[in-house]
Amino acid sequence: MQFSQEDFEKAKEQVNLLQDEPSDDIKLKLYALYKQATVGSCNIPKPSMLDFVNKAKWDAWNSLGSMTPDNARQSYIELVSSLVPTETSPVNEIPPGSKSIYETLEVTIKDNITKIILNRPKRKNAINVKMYNEIMKALEEAANDDSAIAVLTGNGDYYCSGNDLNNFTQVSPGGMEESAKNSAEMLKKFVQHFIDFPKPLIAMVNGPAVGISVTLLGLFDIVYATDQATFHTPFSNLGQSPEGCSSYTFPKIMGLTKATEMLLFNKKLTAAEACSQGLVTEVFPDSTFQKEVWARLKAYANLPKKTLTVSKQLIRNMEKEKLYEVNSQECECLMERWLSEECMNAVMSFIQKKSKL
Amino acid sequence: MQFSQEDFEKAKEQVNLLQDEPSDDIKLKLYALYKQATVGSCNIPKPSMLDFVNKAKWDAWNSLGSMTPDNARQSYIELVSSLVPTETSPVNEIPPGSKSIYETLEVTIKDNITKIILNRPKRKNAINVKMYNEIMKALEEAANDDSAIAVLTGNGDYYCSGNDLNNFTQVSPGGMEESAKNSAEMLKKFVQHFIDFPKPLIAMVNGPAVGISVTLLGLFDIVYATDQATFHTPFSNLGQSPEGCSSYTFPKIMGLTKATEMLLFNKKLTAAEACSQGLVTEVFPDSTFQKEVWARLKAYANLPKKTLTVSKQLIRNMEKEKLYEVNSQECECLMERWLSEECMNAVMSFIQKKSKL
Amino acid sequence: MQFSQEDFEKAKEQVNLLQDEPSDDIKLKLYALYKQATVGSCNIPKPSMLDFVNKAKWDAWNSLGSMTPDNARQSYIELVSSLVPTETSPVNEIPPGSKSIYETLEVTIKDNITKIILNRPKRKNAINVKMYNEIMKALEEAANDDSAIAVLTGNGDYYCSGNDLNNFTQVSPGGMEESAKNSAEMLKKFVQHFIDFPKPLIAMVNGPAVGISVTLLGLFDIVYATDQATFHTPFSNLGQSPEGCSSYTFPKIMGLTKATEMLLFNKKLTAAEACSQGLVTEVFPDSTFQKEVWARLKAYANLPKKTLTVSKQLIRNMEKEKLYEVNSQECECLMERWLSEECMNAVMSFIQKKSKL
Repeated sequence: MQFSQEDFEKAKEQVNLLQDEPSDDIKLKLYALYKQATVGSCNIPKPSMLDFVNKAKWDAWNSLGSMTPDNARQSYIELVSSLVPTETSPVNEIPPGSKSIYETLEVTIKDNITKIILNRPKRKNAINVKMYNEIMKALEEAANDDSAIAVLTGNGDYYCSGNDLNNFTQVSPGGMEESAKNSAEMLKKFVQHFIDFPKPLIAMVNGPAVGISVTLLGLFDIVYATDQATFHTPFSNLGQSPEGCSSYTFPKIMGLTKATEMLLFNKKLTAAEACSQGLVTEVFPDSTFQKEVWARLKAYANLPKKTLTVSKQLIRNMEKEKLYEVNSQECECLMERWLSEECMNAVMSFIQKKSKL
Repeated sequence: MQFSQEDFEKAKEQVNLLQDEPSDDIKLKLYALYKQATVGSCNIPKPSMLDFVNKAKWDAWNSLGSMTPDNARQSYIELVSSLVPTETSPVNEIPPGSKSIYETLEVTIKDNITKIILNRPKRKNAINVKMYNEIMKALEEAANDDSAIAVLTGNGDYYCSGNDLNNFTQVSPGGMEESAKNSAEMLKKFVQHFIDFPKPLIAMVNGPAVGISVTLLGLFDIVYATDQATFHTPFSNLGQSPEGCSSYTFPKIMGLTKATEMLLFNKKLTAAEACSQGLVTEVFPDSTFQKEVWARLKAYANLPKKTLTVSKQLIRNMEKEKLYEVNSQECECLMERWLSEECMNAVMSFIQKKSKL
Repeated sequence: MQFSQEDFEKAKEQVNLLQDEPSDDIKLKLYALYKQATVGSCNIPKPSMLDFVNKAKWDAWNSLGSMTPDNARQSYIELVSSLVPTETSPVNEIPPGSKSIYETLEVTIKDNITKIILNRPKRKNAINVKMYNEIMKALEEAANDDSAIAVLTGNGDYYCSGNDLNNFTQVSPGGMEESAKNSAEMLKKFVQHFIDFPKPLIAMVNGPAVGISVTLLGLFDIVYATDQATFHTPFSNLGQSPEGCSSYTFPKIMGLTKATEMLLFNKKLTAAEACSQGLVTEVFPDSTFQKEVWARLKAYANLPKKTLTVSKQLIRNMEKEKLYEVNSQECECLMERWLSEECMNAVMSFIQKKSKL
């Protein structure tokens, strides 16, 4: 045995000090190895299908079979140590001088442009509850600041991997129904911030976009993408229905049948496809993406500010009531989905697949 | 003379035994030759323009001029015998084991997919009154069966050649106005079945599509086409206005001006054009069309069923009221057209052109 | 000195006899040189920013600095004489036999087609107040004449350079506010004529199109363009918001983000781009443009007339109320813009830039 009990205790502490939250599958592996190391083989009854967090944990633990506690401890220590070094790599895209009051975002104002950067690169900029709230706050501030336009982009390789599935595993004390209701209400408020944003809102899609980060694009005024970006909304796979007003904006943008391929049948689009279907305004080679887009945005931001706001609202306001209605319907529909057995089984099966080694 | 009176009598009987109804032009030729053979040259007064069935028959007969009864009889016998052999060729696309309660359709359920096949290949799957009614029935059943999706396609070379013009020639006892009213009501009910269909509805366009089989595509959720398909809505040529909700769906799908080229100015689209204009979701080489599309559809049909239905309805329901209204307006408008002199003259001239040898 | 006082007086007279009104920049140069020649260097106080006609004149005069009266007179004479010869070139596109009651248009009826030609080629077919009124009159007449379709096109190299900026410099006695109100009312009435036009309306875009001549295209049923055409709506540059119902039709035609690039961020489209975005129905090589399009239009105009009108209205009428509402909102919004400092400064700076040699 290469590792002592002391190493194991130290690894346990390191887990709590990790700068970034590990992914679901890593957390399940850590849980399973810890239980195997301290309790031995899985010895508790299988939880019900509907209790999917505990079911996932049980599956992970049970999958270790008769692994010895020593081997489990060793695997645990190795897994933790593989997580630690990456924590020291610099998050080098963020300008060192910027002073952020956000945990999950980096927000800067310069050259008449408010730039909102999704900043959980190790989690592929997945949107957890914290980030949902911070994006809303950042949009409120950008609506009232002196800038002419606002830009949303991601730090790292991903634009955004969508809703953080961890959000599903935090069942509130009131139970599943209350959790679903709270999530639906937060989602509705979140999408409304995009509907109501008064200035030109530009997405710089710097890499793959998934789920709600894709559906929201229909509420942006301009969408520029690198040729490395992809667009994927695998809702049906997860037993879920579309949100972000995409059930209305996508058919309007790309026609009903191409919207159906994406929103019902999980079709993933390349940047070029997304552009030819009107979801993306223009695609740039990855190597010149930042340079070309920022040059263009700086020119836009120098146009008469009030005129831009007035013209954007002229275009958008006539469908605002419709968008509110669509947003409400989508969130109600999704709340029902979340409580359906179909959805629970689908999410469950997805998490289990990811948690397999 | 090669043919006896007996041959002529036998040919007359064969006509009544033909498995498939001959086309309009063939029927007019049969009528004319029969009259010429039995009565001689056309000796009745020319019917009024508005009585267009009898006018077409008169034109056909009159066009034979002074052909001798013998020659007419011979031509009649030859024409009938040219129709008979084709009746024995097998309709080989229909799986032999399937048990159909439909005359004009073949309906099967397999792999979570309800497949509705238009099955009048000798008439290029033209929709006669029987087929209108059977399609409605098949959609009602598919809405309630256990399948996840429904697919509409055609047997033979054509997807569908549109409304069977024979429907026009069956004037009801109540006269032209009642006929027009009945037809408009049936059409409205027919289109409503597509508006209301609750599950994902997929068109597999296996060949040329004409008229209402094209306009209805705007109500499908996915449209896959072979590269041999064409899309043609020659309404203005026939003095008619668009239906199937196309006056609303087509401008939405392809923009108003490209919709106008099709719906007003008879532009025929290739499959590639229809795809780039959003009417078709994707085009496949004819040689791999069936294989590729069915592989894809089977994957779709394995997704969570209830989720597919809920998501489709989320997308569609918000325009349902609008579609009902459009359908009503189109049918009213078309009823007026049918009774207009412009339309009567146009249909007349079309039938006459077709009935010329 | 090559030119006498007599030459100068003669030049002054020639200016009044010019067949076509010179452009704004030419008129400002003429004004400045005349003042410099007769008064000397600019000796009046600088007008206020808001009095932008006088400010532009002052700027032009002041820019001549200490140029001597003699040099100014000589430059004036040369400038006038450069304007005169071009007046004698024949406006060769207009058929000599046509009898027009319009000053700014040429209207002909032939082959079931009413052809309305914008006919101020030396001003790039800019729409002055006269032309606004004449186009309305021509549309009213075309609605009621016997033709099946109406076609709008331009004489010369341009299709139309948009609103004549001279319209801005004619402040009515009631002051800026009354002027803005009158302009907004005229614009609203003008756009309404396009919304209400009952027959198929076809644009033949024979060259560059700017401003309102572009935005109105969303109200045409077919738009054919030469490959030399461009489409430009530089509203934000001039502190103005979009009109012609484009805030509604453009997002519908090309998707919201591509509409935003044009209407907010001044993106100029080539004919090919405009076609791929659905604003243009089809693009033709410039060399065969007239021939190919007229052949096609003649075929269209032979279709049943009443059917064309009924079908166009079926497609259009369902959004008529919406279009009225959009038109009203756009005109109100634009009236406010015209009175804003942002707009005044932007127009001012544009006129000044153009008036520099």
